[in-house]
Amino acid sequence: MEACTVMKLIAGNAVIGQSGGPTAVINQSLVGVVEELRKSLHKRGIVRTIYGMRHGVNGLVKEQVVDLTRIPAAALERLARSPGAALGSSRDKPDRDYCNAILNACSKLDIRYFFYIGGNDSSDTCRIVSELAGEAGYELRCFHVPKTVDNDLMGNDHTPGYPSAARFVASAFMADSMDNASLPGIKINVVMGRHAGFLTAAAALAREGVAPGRARKGGDEPGPHLIYVPEVPFDAERFVDEVREVYLRLGRCQVAVSEGIQDAQGRAIATTLSSSGEVDPHGNVQLSGTGALGDALAELCKKRIKTTGGKPPRVRADTFGYLQRCWPDPSSVDVKEARAAGVFAVRLAARGEGSGSVAIRRARGKGYKPSFVRQDLRDVAARTRHMPREFLKGTSDVSKKFMDYARPLVGRLPRFERL
Amino acid sequence: MEACTVMKLIAGNAVIGQSGGPTAVINQSLVGVVEELRKSLHKRGIVRTIYGMRHGVNGLVKEQVVDLTRIPAAALERLARSPGAALGSSRDKPDRDYCNAILNACSKLDIRYFFYIGGNDSSDTCRIVSELAGEAGYELRCFHVPKTVDNDLMGNDHTPGYPSAARFVASAFMADSMDNASLPGIKINVVMGRHAGFLTAAAALAREGVAPGRARKGGDEPGPHLIYVPEVPFDAERFVDEVREVYLRLGRCQVAVSEGIQDAQGRAIATTLSSSGEVDPHGNVQLSGTGALGDALAELCKKRIKTTGGKPPRVRADTFGYLQRCWPDPSSVDVKEARAAGVFAVRLAARGEGSGSVAIRRARGKGYKPSFVRQDLRDVAARTRHMPREFLKGTSDVSKKFMDYARPLVGRLPRFERL
Repeated sequence: MEACTVMKLIAGNAVIGQSGGPTAVINQSLVGVVEELRKSLHKRGIVRTIYGMRHGVNGLVKEQVVDLTRIPAAALERLARSPGAALGSSRDKPDRDYCNAILNACSKLDIRYFFYIGGNDSSDTCRIVSELAGEAGYELRCFHVPKTVDNDLMGNDHTPGYPSAARFVASAFMADSMDNASLPGIKINVVMGRHAGFLTAAAALAREGVAPGRARKGGDEPGPHLIYVPEVPFDAERFVDEVREVYLRLGRCQVAVSEGIQDAQGRAIATTLSSSGEVDPHGNVQLSGTGALGDALAELCKKRIKTTGGKPPRVRADTFGYLQRCWPDPSSVDVKEARAAGVFAVRLAARGEGSGSVAIRRARGKGYKPSFVRQDLRDVAARTRHMPREFLKGTSDVSKKFMDYARPLVGRLPRFERL
Repeated sequence: MEACTVMKLIAGNAVIGQSGGPTAVINQSLVGVVEELRKSLHKRGIVRTIYGMRHGVNGLVKEQVVDLTRIPAAALERLARSPGAALGSSRDKPDRDYCNAILNACSKLDIRYFFYIGGNDSSDTCRIVSELAGEAGYELRCFHVPKTVDNDLMGNDHTPGYPSAARFVASAFMADSMDNASLPGIKINVVMGRHAGFLTAAAALAREGVAPGRARKGGDEPGPHLIYVPEVPFDAERFVDEVREVYLRLGRCQVAVSEGIQDAQGRAIATTLSSSGEVDPHGNVQLSGTGALGDALAELCKKRIKTTGGKPPRVRADTFGYLQRCWPDPSSVDVKEARAAGVFAVRLAARGEGSGSVAIRRARGKGYKPSFVRQDLRDVAARTRHMPREFLKGTSDVSKKFMDYARPLVGRLPRFERL
C-alpha cells in the first residue's frame, strides 16, 4: 500500500511559508514540516530542496526564499521554541492573478509540495494555487497547516496558536483581577478577536484560579464579571446597565471585551463609538494596535455610572494588544499540536494525498484526546467559524460547556489566594 | 545586648498595611512581616494581635482591620505567591489631619508597631504619623517597607516590585520584537513610569534574548531600537527623525516609551500631544489605563514617516498597562527580597529601633549581593529617585552600566533564535 502510493509521488522541491499574525507556536509547525520532510520525502529522494518563503507568498513571488534543507537539528529545535514567524509573515490576500504569480514561482523553483501555515486566507491561497496548477497541468500539492489565535477556522475543534493565546488571556485576567480587587473600580480589558469571541471567552478561565470557597466567603467574586464577544450583538445601553449592576454590588467590575464587538447591524463598535461623538476618531480605526475601543468604553462608564456617593467611579482600560499572540509561555498542548499539525501535513503529502487542509478534532468522551484529519481546502478557505450558541450564556458570559472545552487547551494555571 | 533592647519594647499590638499600586510580590512583604512578627515579638508576648488594614490607612481610620495573628502558615504561603495587595490597597495621600485620624485609630487599637508597605507617599505617611505620635507622647514605631515597580525610592539600589515588572517588560519586548520582525513596521510600546525611566529602560534586556551573532548576520538587530525615558526631555521632532532613521535602515523599528515622558518644560507629553491637535483629548489625560499616549505617537509616525515607496508605514502602539505590575511570573530575586524586606522591618522593631524605612543596597564587586539597611523616613519620604546619568546613552538608549545593573534583578530570560 505504502509502496504503491509512493510510486505516484512526483520528484521535485518543497516550499514552506508562514502567513498572517504570528503566534507563540507557529515555528513549531514550521519545524514540524521541515523535520518530517527531511525524515520522509527528502530521505527517499523525492524532495531535493526544502525552501522557506521570506514573508509568505509575498517573498515567494519575488523568489525570496531560503534553503532549509540542512539547518542543524539543534538550531531547528531552538527555532521551534521561539515565538513569531521565523520566515517572516505577510498580510497579502492573493487573488487569481497573484496566485498565478505564485504558481509561476513554484514552477521556476520546481516546487511540487507547497505548505502554508496560516488562517483562512492562507487556506484560500492554497485552494486557488492548487486549482490553477490543476488547470495548467502542473502537478503541485498544496497543504494548509492551521494557525490562528482567533480560533475561527471551520472544521477544527481549535487551531494551533489559540491555546497559548488563551493561556495568556486567562493568566492576564487572573493577575488583573487581583490588581482590580486591590484598588477597586471598573476595569475593561480589550482582547483580540475580530469576528470570533473564543479568545475573549478564555478570560473566564481566570475565575478558576482563585480559591473559590474563600473568594465567596469574602463576598467578592473573581473576575472577569462580564464578557462581551462579537457573536452577541453589543448594545451600549445594556453594557452600561450590566457594568453598573456589578460595580454597585461588588464595588468593582472586571470586563472582558472582544476588539471585534459589533452592534445588531454588524457595525464594529470600535467605529461606531468613535464616530458617535463619544470619542473623536484617530484617522483610521484599527482594532489592534490602538487603545481607542477600550478608551471609548471607559469614557462611557465614567460618564454614565456613579458610585453610591454620586462620584464617577475609577475606570481604567487596557488593550492587551500584540502581547497576546506571541507571549513566551505557550500552552504545552499547543506546543505539541502545532508541531504535530506540521508533521501531519507532510504525512498527507507522503501518502500521495491531494491538496488539503490539516484539521484538529477532539475525541468524545473522558479526557482530552486530539486527532488530526485532512479536510478539503474548500471547506475551510475564506470562511469564519464563530462560537457556537452552546458556548454562550446570556448576553455577557460563557457557559460551562465552553469552560470544559477551553480548560484542557490552556494547561495548568497558577492558583491564587485571597484574604 | 538583646535582653537590654527588648526591655525597651512596649507591649501592644501591630498593624500592617499595603499602599499604592499593587505588585507581583507585595504579598511576599506582607507575609514576611506577619511571619517574623509571629516568630519574634508575638512569641515573646510583646505583640498580642497582628492586624491588617483593609485598603491601607483608608481602612485603618474606619477601623476596618482583619486579624492576621493566626492565619495558617500554608495559607500565608499561598498568599505570598499571589499577586495584588491581599489586604487591599489605597491611593490616599494623608496630610496631618488624616495622619491624626490614623494615630487615633492606632491608639484605640493599642497599636505600637505600624508597618506600611508602599512607595514614597507611604513612607511620608509613616513619617508624619511617627512625628505626631512623638508630639502626643504616644509610643508608636512606624516602619516603611519599600515597594514600587517605578523603582524611584531614594536610598535604594532598587525596590521590591521593580525586578518582576522589569522581567515582564523585558519578556514582552523580546516576544514583541519577534512579532515585529515577522510583520515589519513601526511598533511603539508604552511602559509604566510616571517620573522615572527604570522600568522602560528594562526593555533593553530584551536585546540579549536573541542569539546575537545570528541576528547580526541577517542584518536585523533585536529590539528595542529606541528607548525614551522621562529623564531625557522628549522632543517630538527628534523622535520622528530617530524612528525614521531606524525604520529606513532596518525596515522596522521597535520603540520603548515611558508613559511619563515630558518635554524640556517638564510638561507630560501625554498631555501636550493630546492638546496640540494631533489627538483629541479624552477628558482627563491619565497616564495608565488608557492608550492615548501610544495612539498619539503612532499617529505622529503615520503622518510624518514614509516608506521608501512613499507610502505611510505600518504603525502600531501597545500600552502595556496594568499587566506589568502583577504579572504572575515574578523574578526570583524579587520574591526573596520582597519577603526579606518585610522580615527586616520586624527585626528593626524587635531590636528596639525607632521609626525608619527599609532600604535595599548592593555590595560592590563581583556577583550580585543585596543587603538591607534602615534609613531615616525623612530621607525617602515624598522624594523621587531618577535614573542616574550614567545609566543613559545619548537621547534614546541606555548604557552598559544600566544593563549590568538590571540583568541580575530580572533573572533568567528565554533565549530565542532567528533564521
